[in-house]
Amino acid sequence: MEIEVKFRVDFDRMRAAIEGLGAEFIHEEVQEDLYFLLPYPQLLRVRRISNLDRSFLTYKLIKDPGRNEEFDELEVEVSDFETTVEILRRLGYREDVWVKKHRLVYRLGEVTFELNRVENLGDFLDIEVITEDIEEAKRKIWEIAEKLGLKREDVEPRLYQELMRL
Amino acid sequence: MEIEVKFRVDFDRMRAAIEGLGAEFIHEEVQEDLYFLLPYPQLLRVRRISNLDRSFLTYKLIKDPGRNEEFDELEVEVSDFETTVEILRRLGYREDVWVKKHRLVYRLGEVTFELNRVENLGDFLDIEVITEDIEEAKRKIWEIAEKLGLKREDVEPRLYQELMRL
Repeated sequence: MEIEVKFRVDFDRMRAAIEGLGAEFIHEEVQEDLYFLLPYPQLLRVRRISNLDRSFLTYKLIKDPGRNEEFDELEVEVSDFETTVEILRRLGYREDVWVKKHRLVYRLGEVTFELNRVENLGDFLDIEVITEDIEEAKRKIWEIAEKLGLKREDVEPRLYQELMRL
Repeated sequence: MEIEVKFRVDFDRMRAAIEGLGAEFIHEEVQEDLYFLLPYPQLLRVRRISNLDRSFLTYKLIKDPGRNEEFDELEVEVSDFETTVEILRRLGYREDVWVKKHRLVYRLGEVTFELNRVENLGDFLDIEVITEDIEEAKRKIWEIAEKLGLKREDVEPRLYQELMRL
C-alpha cells in the first residue's frame, strides 16, 4: 500500500528544508501524466518521464476516498507512451486531464519526498511511505512533516487530477 | 497493418522446408498468452515470452472479420506480466482463454515465419508481412506458401483464441 500526504509548499524553501534533513537526492523527473476517465475512487494514468525516457501505466484504487492518502497501486513500465495511450483509447477510455510537473525525488530511510512544481497548479510536496502498516506510516510522515514546518492546514487532500479539472 | 495467413502444418517437415528456402532463424519463443473477453473483432492479450523474460500488452482490431488475415495491431512491451494482467482485471476485463505455444521465428526479406506448436491445438505456421499494401502482401505470402507446398485447404481461418474455446 502507498501512503502519501500532499502539502502545498514553496518549492525553493522546501527543497532547502528537505536537504537540511539529510535526505538523499535520487533524481529529477519531468512528468507528463495523462489521466483517463474512470469512476472515483479509481485512477487510470499513463505517465511519460520525458527526461529519463521512461513511461508507465498505472492503476490506483483509493482506499480512503475523500482523504486520498491511501492508495492500492498497480504499475508497469511500458515501452511506448503513445501506443499505450492509443490502446486505452481503443478500449474505449476517454481522456480526462493532463498533469505536467517538474519533480525532485529525495529519500530518507523508508520515506520518499516528491517535491513538485505542477504546471498551472503550483508547488506541492508529497511525502510517501510504502507499507502495510498504515498508522505507523502516517505517524512517520507527520513526524517528518513537522520537522519541515508543515501543518495540518498545509495539506491538500484533492488529487492533482481533481485540481486540474477546477 | 499486419497481414498474416495461418496454415495447419507438420512442425518438423515445415521447419525443414522453411530452412530449405534460406530463411534466417531469428529466435525461439515460449509464449503464454492470456486473452481477455472483448467483443469480436477486437482482441486484447497479455503475452509472456518466458524464455526471453519479456512481456507484451497487445490490442488488435481485425479488419477482415471471418477471414482473420488483416490486423490493425497496437503493442507495447511491459515490465511485468502479472501486474499487467491484474490492471486489466481491476479495469473489469474478464479472462477468456490461455494459448500456450512453442514458436520458432524465421525471416526471409519482409516475410516473417512463425512456426508454432500450440498446446492442445497442434502445429501451425503463420506467414506474416507488415505493410500498408494488403494485396501485395497476400501475393507475397501465397508465393512463399506455394514454395512450402501449402494449399488453400491448409488455411486455418480461426483465431487461436477461438480454437481454444472449442
